[in-house]
Amino acid sequence: MPRTVEIICSGNELLIGNTLNTNAHWLAKRITTLGLNVRRITVVGDDVNEISASIKEAITRKPMFIITTGGLGPTFDDKTLEGVSMALGCELEINKEALKMIEEKYRRYVAEGRIDKFEMTPHRVKMATLPKGSKPIPNPVGTAPGVLAEYGDIRLIMLPGVPSEMKAIFEESVEPLIRQVSGDMTFYEASIEVWGIAESSLAPIIDQIMHDNPYIYVKSHPKAAERIPHLELHLSTMSDDAKVARRRVERALMQISEIIQRMGGIIKTAKETP
Amino acid sequence: MPRTVEIICSGNELLIGNTLNTNAHWLAKRITTLGLNVRRITVVGDDVNEISASIKEAITRKPMFIITTGGLGPTFDDKTLEGVSMALGCELEINKEALKMIEEKYRRYVAEGRIDKFEMTPHRVKMATLPKGSKPIPNPVGTAPGVLAEYGDIRLIMLPGVPSEMKAIFEESVEPLIRQVSGDMTFYEASIEVWGIAESSLAPIIDQIMHDNPYIYVKSHPKAAERIPHLELHLSTMSDDAKVARRRVERALMQISEIIQRMGGIIKTAKETP
Repeated sequence: MPRTVEIICSGNELLIGNTLNTNAHWLAKRITTLGLNVRRITVVGDDVNEISASIKEAITRKPMFIITTGGLGPTFDDKTLEGVSMALGCELEINKEALKMIEEKYRRYVAEGRIDKFEMTPHRVKMATLPKGSKPIPNPVGTAPGVLAEYGDIRLIMLPGVPSEMKAIFEESVEPLIRQVSGDMTFYEASIEVWGIAESSLAPIIDQIMHDNPYIYVKSHPKAAERIPHLELHLSTMSDDAKVARRRVERALMQISEIIQRMGGIIKTAKETP
Repeated sequence: MPRTVEIICSGNELLIGNTLNTNAHWLAKRITTLGLNVRRITVVGDDVNEISASIKEAITRKPMFIITTGGLGPTFDDKTLEGVSMALGCELEINKEALKMIEEKYRRYVAEGRIDKFEMTPHRVKMATLPKGSKPIPNPVGTAPGVLAEYGDIRLIMLPGVPSEMKAIFEESVEPLIRQVSGDMTFYEASIEVWGIAESSLAPIIDQIMHDNPYIYVKSHPKAAERIPHLELHLSTMSDDAKVARRRVERALMQISEIIQRMGGIIKTAKETP
């Protein structure tokens, strides 16, 4: 099974450019650091057919995990669970465990004076209406629980769109699931900033470094056009041995730095992040 | 033909969480403001099969435009044009007009002292190697031209990943193409921040407002959990008459504000954006 993850974000606010998709960015970094590969990020609107279609398409690519963000709340356009049930061909039903979680939240909100009276309105019960066979995941900071569903070997994890809730559920309940399958894989990366060499002049050097260092991926990011060419070189690798990963990156970094200096380039900053 | 646009961003840096996808956000806002609907945003890696697959899939949904970002540069992993030619089933060939554009850039870089000598290396010629039948779009601030290809009624526009280059090409050459088809459509939006009412309590009110105002879309964005419930309400509409659009949003905004105040909620800020 390929060690891949797909991220699907639903929300009209993302498609109209009202909200910057920091959720996908945060998840992609976390998942990569945990040793799995994000293969694709898809953003769709609050439309049950679009959500369902994007999940069905992701399933055909057989990732280990499909992680969705958004669409779990109480309003009419929170349609992720409806989309998931449509994609998986199963019914929606009120999940007792989820209902209990949500009831507890609203009882607490009443005690705290955040709402006037306890009442399980249809919009609140909606958050406990899950695809049959799936499980709620506790939400330590918000109301709507996350949801875990399984389809063959694929695990689907539905997270809320509010970033603080998404992150809290991920850290508490999703990270352990990913660690179970990713084992001890380590992602190691480092980057340097280079002045004075055009990207097109560096391109053959990158080819050579990647040829000599088969486990290293080198990516150049040209910066905005300036009088002096300026780019970032990003080197990364994955290994089940953290020391090996670090050594590989450092070796390639040393090689490429020597060549750049020989070509008259200036390396101004360097950062490594384990 | 549905008035939709799809955005496809390629770049491993997006999938490992090294780069926040501000390009998709910027494009989505611009396209929406110009009166078309962004239906989907897809992010794939620097992999020719992934790029080709995502373009083929977008084509099946028949958008007016498919706009890609990234993968037009001189390095080995700039694979967008190869992916496009694979998806469209056409060959890659050196485009004379593109080659001339790029040669002029490098002659200027020599004159400016940015590179030592003029030389059209294979990595530089690569940027002029386009899918057969497509046209280069001038890049006012960088080296690699954008590319325009057509597939039936669908226009494919390939833009660079460097934000300043992407924006400059969009504003100079893509916006006029979109205006041709979008006519006078106006997107109008406004938002208010609400304190003191839980999202689940507001959910039935949103249903009612949307029922009474059929052209208005109301979206609630709960903020991070606080002692007092806090959310943003975003109202938007599209119309070919800017005044009508504005009046619709203002009418719905007034209605919902009255209800919120009657429920004891506090509206703290309001912003409208034409």
